[in-house]
Amino acid sequence: MPKKVLIIGGVAGGASTAARLRRMDENAEIILFEKGEHISFANCGLPYYIGGVIEEREKLLIQTPEKFQKRFRVEVKVKNEVIKIDREKKEVEVKELESGRIYREFYDVLVLSPGSIPLHPPIEGIDSPNIFTLWNIPDSDRIKEFIEQKKPKRVAVIGGGFIGLEMAENLYHQGMDVSIIEMADQVMAPMDFEMAQIVHQHIKSKDVKVYLKDGVESFEHKDGLTILKLQSGTKIEVDLVLLSIGVRPQSELAKDAGLKVNERGGIIVDSMLRTSDPSIYAVGDAIEVVDFINGSKTMVPLAGPANKQGRIVANNIVGRKEEYKGSQGTSIAKIFDLTVASTGNNEKQLNKLGMRLNKDYKVSLIHANSNASYYPGSIPMTIKLIFDLSGKVLGAQIVGYNGVDKRIDVLATSIRLGANIYDLKELELAYAPPYSSAKDPVHMVAFHAENILKGDLDVILWNELQRLQKEDVIFLDVREPIERELGFIENSINIPLHQLRDRLKELDPNKLIIPYCAVGLRGYIASRILTQNGFKKVKNLSGGYTTYKTIFS
Amino acid sequence: MPKKVLIIGGVAGGASTAARLRRMDENAEIILFEKGEHISFANCGLPYYIGGVIEEREKLLIQTPEKFQKRFRVEVKVKNEVIKIDREKKEVEVKELESGRIYREFYDVLVLSPGSIPLHPPIEGIDSPNIFTLWNIPDSDRIKEFIEQKKPKRVAVIGGGFIGLEMAENLYHQGMDVSIIEMADQVMAPMDFEMAQIVHQHIKSKDVKVYLKDGVESFEHKDGLTILKLQSGTKIEVDLVLLSIGVRPQSELAKDAGLKVNERGGIIVDSMLRTSDPSIYAVGDAIEVVDFINGSKTMVPLAGPANKQGRIVANNIVGRKEEYKGSQGTSIAKIFDLTVASTGNNEKQLNKLGMRLNKDYKVSLIHANSNASYYPGSIPMTIKLIFDLSGKVLGAQIVGYNGVDKRIDVLATSIRLGANIYDLKELELAYAPPYSSAKDPVHMVAFHAENILKGDLDVILWNELQRLQKEDVIFLDVREPIERELGFIENSINIPLHQLRDRLKELDPNKLIIPYCAVGLRGYIASRILTQNGFKKVKNLSGGYTTYKTIFS
Ligand SMILES: Cc1cc2nc3c(=O)[nH]c(=O)nc-3n(C[C@H](O)[C@H](O)[C@H](O)COP(=O)(O)OP(=O)(O)OC[C@H]3O[C@@H](n4cnc5c(N)ncnc54)[C@H](O)[C@@H]3O)c2cc1C
Ligand SMILES: Cc1cc2nc3c(=O)[nH]c(=O)nc-3n(C[C@H](O)[C@H](O)[C@H](O)COP(=O)(O)OP(=O)(O)OC[C@H]3O[C@@H](n4cnc5c(N)ncnc54)[C@H](O)[C@@H]3O)c2cc1C
Ligand SMILES: CC(C)(COP(=O)(O)OP(=O)(O)OC[C@H]1O[C@@H](n2cnc3c(N)ncnc32)[C@H](O)[C@@H]1OP(=O)(O)O)[C@@H](O)C(=O)NCCC(=O)NCCS
Ligand SMILES: CC(C)(COP(=O)(O)OP(=O)(O)OC[C@H]1O[C@@H](n2cnc3c(N)ncnc32)[C@H](O)[C@@H]1OP(=O)(O)O)[C@@H](O)C(=O)NCCC(=O)NCCS
Repeated sequence: MPKKVLIIGGVAGGASTAARLRRMDENAEIILFEKGEHISFANCGLPYYIGGVIEEREKLLIQTPEKFQKRFRVEVKVKNEVIKIDREKKEVEVKELESGRIYREFYDVLVLSPGSIPLHPPIEGIDSPNIFTLWNIPDSDRIKEFIEQKKPKRVAVIGGGFIGLEMAENLYHQGMDVSIIEMADQVMAPMDFEMAQIVHQHIKSKDVKVYLKDGVESFEHKDGLTILKLQSGTKIEVDLVLLSIGVRPQSELAKDAGLKVNERGGIIVDSMLRTSDPSIYAVGDAIEVVDFINGSKTMVPLAGPANKQGRIVANNIVGRKEEYKGSQGTSIAKIFDLTVASTGNNEKQLNKLGMRLNKDYKVSLIHANSNASYYPGSIPMTIKLIFDLSGKVLGAQIVGYNGVDKRIDVLATSIRLGANIYDLKELELAYAPPYSSAKDPVHMVAFHAENILKGDLDVILWNELQRLQKEDVIFLDVREPIERELGFIENSINIPLHQLRDRLKELDPNKLIIPYCAVGLRGYIASRILTQNGFKKVKNLSGGYTTYKTIFS
Repeated sequence: MPKKVLIIGGVAGGASTAARLRRMDENAEIILFEKGEHISFANCGLPYYIGGVIEEREKLLIQTPEKFQKRFRVEVKVKNEVIKIDREKKEVEVKELESGRIYREFYDVLVLSPGSIPLHPPIEGIDSPNIFTLWNIPDSDRIKEFIEQKKPKRVAVIGGGFIGLEMAENLYHQGMDVSIIEMADQVMAPMDFEMAQIVHQHIKSKDVKVYLKDGVESFEHKDGLTILKLQSGTKIEVDLVLLSIGVRPQSELAKDAGLKVNERGGIIVDSMLRTSDPSIYAVGDAIEVVDFINGSKTMVPLAGPANKQGRIVANNIVGRKEEYKGSQGTSIAKIFDLTVASTGNNEKQLNKLGMRLNKDYKVSLIHANSNASYYPGSIPMTIKLIFDLSGKVLGAQIVGYNGVDKRIDVLATSIRLGANIYDLKELELAYAPPYSSAKDPVHMVAFHAENILKGDLDVILWNELQRLQKEDVIFLDVREPIERELGFIENSINIPLHQLRDRLKELDPNKLIIPYCAVGLRGYIASRILTQNGFKKVKNLSGGYTTYKTIFS
């Protein structure tokens, strides 16, 4: 008898499972339940559809139920919500949403891909008619309709995650006056603070207001507009609110059926993506996964993992044992003109695990050009690489413009394949002037890392500066005098790099000397000159004045 | 006593060695000899400077002798040619080119980075005044001056390698009528034929003429123009000839000093980049390297390896044992609007080593979009992945537009780190709609490879079609009827994919069935349906009609 497989959720994880399963097993009976009216839609495209970057709504529908049914001979039941899982009988209870009819369906194998839903905390006034969340096509229809009808001018985006920021950008481009409100001291949680600061500055340069370390206390709806009262006391009046403060797994069904879930509601699965009931698999946003870097348990609500997990589950259902080896949280977002990307662990995560800078891990941070500096389009990016004391790469973050996506993918690949910084410097990447430099930014950050790890260079990070006693320190600006006109560190002395060897006497060898230049490279060369000339305490300013200015101005 | 290090060649390999060496050793005495008048210039930018894409000549001079001397305290001797190496005495003999003075200089360590020079075979008429090669700044000055003064209208580029094609593009953009002449049956030797065909079609679409399998028999200079007589008998009249048929190592000096060189003149080095004389290192275009994939000896005249080798040699000189593990030949070029890239071995190389398709390696070839199809800028690329029967990745080639550089770097990284196709499908790459798809092209080519390797899908490549007997084969077009209007394979029958399950009876199960669609995806699904319904001989057409059309039209 052919196997009967039921799938709950018809988008990223669910539809992928169904498609692969049919390809692998022409005979299985497959039914896909989706409570919404669409399957296989492009969640990730919604902000751009609202912003008009994607013009046709149809483009968001990668598959329609009809086409999917025809191509894959999968029974697609949209507007059918599974309301109960009866594990004893191996049946689900389904509600046909239009008629209200309730029916049961048997399964040999059940796959859960119910995804997550946006958080919607019980803040006073949160149900006002101009407060929206964005998760699916009907949500975006509603927002688009509101914009067309009400022509909002001022909008508040609550939450500085990637969806919030994508929405901020898309609303801004429609001429709205945008305020972003974020509880943490930074937007884009996957980035560390100094990297997020680049994003803050960029967003502010667009005249978008950014409220950090502040949350919404209440919403007051009045005469078609909403007054946000923030915890700081600030009041903001807007015509439209986009709430985007995070998501939680839609795992009530799993929980009610007695499947194991974690404290955040994430469905617990084994490496083959089986839940605590071996007849039930689960994938996507709703599951707990292993952090590929540190082995802890985490949740990574992203489309790449969901799609891959769907394919793995299909393989497992047809009997090809395949494991999901964990998520490293690779993510990327276009935020106005910037590209902001990360992979692996950041410092905040490592610190939470009890790991400490220099004791357990080190940081290499550089600014490097996207391609050969003499070829058009060359523009700097900031790369932060985190590695342990054996050189193993733990994580990377990049903020910049062109070519950020390439370098994060090279680094994500390297992490996945267990690379250390010595491997990175040996990578043979493709070079021609329009694409890169003979030494790619990835090589540069690895060279720098090697220098730090081997003790050829000591660096000081922005957050180590506060602890210093002014009188014990010399900030040594090795740039050319003309560069100082754009700003410099207070009380720094200026000896251009090419004069340094002849002016060593001007420096007090008992003090900590912190050379700095624009980005760190000349500061590094200065550090080498100083160290080899007997100066014992020399620390190059990581990221140079560029990073300093980003943080302290 | 400080070590005395002499370096021959002041550009990619030589200058990199000098810079790193100084950083590592403040006391070494370092002298850099360069016979030309520039050091550290951007060879790779020259075609774009001639084409006006790079406007300022200064931009090509990454370092001047003066600045380099000041920053690195390296004695830079331009217009000084080393004419002899006296290994006994550990001295070199140098000719000061301006004065003609000859002097000697002692070394503890000598580094050779003499690079290569363009081939200039003794073809009749090759010394005509309007025939140029391009290798350094004076060459480009000469070409630029010729163009400004003589305003050539018709130009022939001899040689279809990346420099020839970059020049073709840059001359074309200046309004010239360009002909490319190439001895082989394809341009861009690192690519296999079906990939190069995409390049041929693209170049031809620009009204650039491409003569393949044809060489120059003679040049005849007459009234300021040159008549090329090709081996085929064709005659071409042009105002300017760019000769770009390959390079050879400038290794006479090494050879004369009794250092071991290979039959092509490549200086032989060990894994620490020492020549047969342990006091002499060599790097860059002039050396023989190990092919990282297959372990054979080869030569890879590219800037990335030269720069990295320079750094390694500097490390070795200061006593940090570091090995160069070989070159995989990663390369990339912008050719008109196309990006053409490769890494690792191609089929031609594998075949030369005696490896055979399906016996020793397999091919996965797909067309996939650069980013989410619903987001602007999405455009297809063609990826060819070659892997052995254990799944190990041997090489990859990509031709397309956006995002080709990213995927080749991910694949180059994967190859370097020893990945197999199963690793590739697990890579956690960065996805948001402007950058990629939830399943990246790299995943897609790996999924397809897995299907082939596991026997879920049999494919037939373009070059296996000729061997078939027409009467034994059914070409099954599973596209929609409307798609056939743009062309189809002769005698193919059309059953759209979604009707296939109901029309299986129309197919003769004794024949070899070759399903095809536009790119291979629906053909794959059709293959799965057929195989699982009892058809024994089914082979999906690799790359679908897109690849077929590229080759056979
Ligand atoms: C605006 C937006 C932008 C995004 N951008 C990106 C991005 O750029 N990159 C990225 O990697 N990820 C992005 N994501 C996240 C990505 O879309 C999700 O991680 C992915 O869709 C998760 O797949 P899933 O199958 O787990 O859940 P989903 O794709 O959300 O599918 C779950 C489906 O299950 C249905 N369902 C739930 N319970 C039931 C039930 N009981 N019965 C029937 N049906 C049910 C739901 O209606 C839903 O349609 C974005 C998400 C949004 C909303
Ligand atoms: C037009 C062009 C485009 C290119 N594009 C690319 C590209 O896009 N990507 C890429 O990876 N590579 C590219 N290359 C190749 C790249 O430039 C070389 O691989 C690289 O420069 C090799 O470095 P090298 O140090 O071995 O030799 P070179 O950089 O050529 O330096 C060798 C130097 O040694 C000097 N020399 C030789 N003999 C003596 C002597 N006896 N005494 C004193 N001096 C001597 C020579 O004058 C020369 O300046 C390009 C090359 C050219 C010409
Ligand atoms: C539309 C959807 C159902 C497609 O699922 P799918 O059929 O598995 O995926 P694709 O159409 O991308 O095709 C991938 C398959 O084609 C194969 N393939 C791709 N190109 C091919 C080619 N040129 N030749 C042969 N096979 C090819 C792959 O090997 C893969 O098959 P496999 O998994 O059996 O190995 C699913 O991706 C989906 O629902 N997407 C929208 C929802 C979503 O992901 N949202 C979040 C992101 S916005
Ligand atoms: C110009 C040239 C001499 C520079 O050599 P270089 O100093 O080794 O290289 P770069 O200027 O790129 O700097 C790299 C160094 O800076 C360090 N660095 C880079 N960014 C840094 C930062 N932000 N902070 C600290 N250090 C940094 C790297 O670690 C590396 O040092 P290391 O090798 O000691 O580890 C050499 O590259 C050259 O001659 N190039 C032109 C010729 C050429 O390559 N042609 C072919 C291509 S067109």
